[in-house]
Amino acid sequence: MDSTLRDDDLAFDVFSKACPSRGTLEHVTGRWGGLTLGALYEGTFRFNELRRRVDGVSEKMLSQTLHALERDGLVHREAQPGNPPRVDYELTPLGRDVAARLLALIHTVEGRMAEVLSARDRYDEAQGGR
Amino acid sequence: MDSTLRDDDLAFDVFSKACPSRGTLEHVTGRWGGLTLGALYEGTFRFNELRRRVDGVSEKMLSQTLHALERDGLVHREAQPGNPPRVDYELTPLGRDVAARLLALIHTVEGRMAEVLSARDRYDEAQGGR
Repeated sequence: MDSTLRDDDLAFDVFSKACPSRGTLEHVTGRWGGLTLGALYEGTFRFNELRRRVDGVSEKMLSQTLHALERDGLVHREAQPGNPPRVDYELTPLGRDVAARLLALIHTVEGRMAEVLSARDRYDEAQGGR
Repeated sequence: MDSTLRDDDLAFDVFSKACPSRGTLEHVTGRWGGLTLGALYEGTFRFNELRRRVDGVSEKMLSQTLHALERDGLVHREAQPGNPPRVDYELTPLGRDVAARLLALIHTVEGRMAEVLSARDRYDEAQGGR
């Protein structure tokens, strides 16, 4: 079954646990990675601006998230001289392409939440009735 | 800044930590949720078929993942009579819409992994030189 299901024309396959694309997908879609990419799609942010935009993220988690996204070539970090130095974060062209796909997913989920919440009510009622 | 950045026409906003859409986005993009939705986009699966397709998932994690996706109305679970009963999993129409967006993201990441790996090499070299 596997050979017909897999995209044979793709060298990388997130369904294979050894494939490095799985790690990158996790950086992109992880709790904070996804929101960080989504926020940066709107423009350049300084660290503290980004922290306010990504509601609920801790300083440590945002820092780790930005490092992983920078290492994957999705985010560019630009330190400006000054005291204290000003550090700006923005998406690379690759990061913009990935973030655009992610935002399409986010907007689909946001736009269908009324259906999701109805489904949850039905599910919980059925569970309660068992 | 927030009021100009937010999509005011959307009732749900994943950037707000109290919004239920954030939880659903996590079910959809979580490590196993994303791969499970991606696999089910290919058709109907039984539990053990799905477990083989989502390489590396444990029985417990796949079970939890399917319950969360079923509760959100993204996956339909159909128990067929028999001994042992046969249980099929498939996407709902809502699940198909969400999975299509997710797969577009997955294929973008897979297709750009050569660039990601080059970026990682450059980043690690720069760190080593510090």
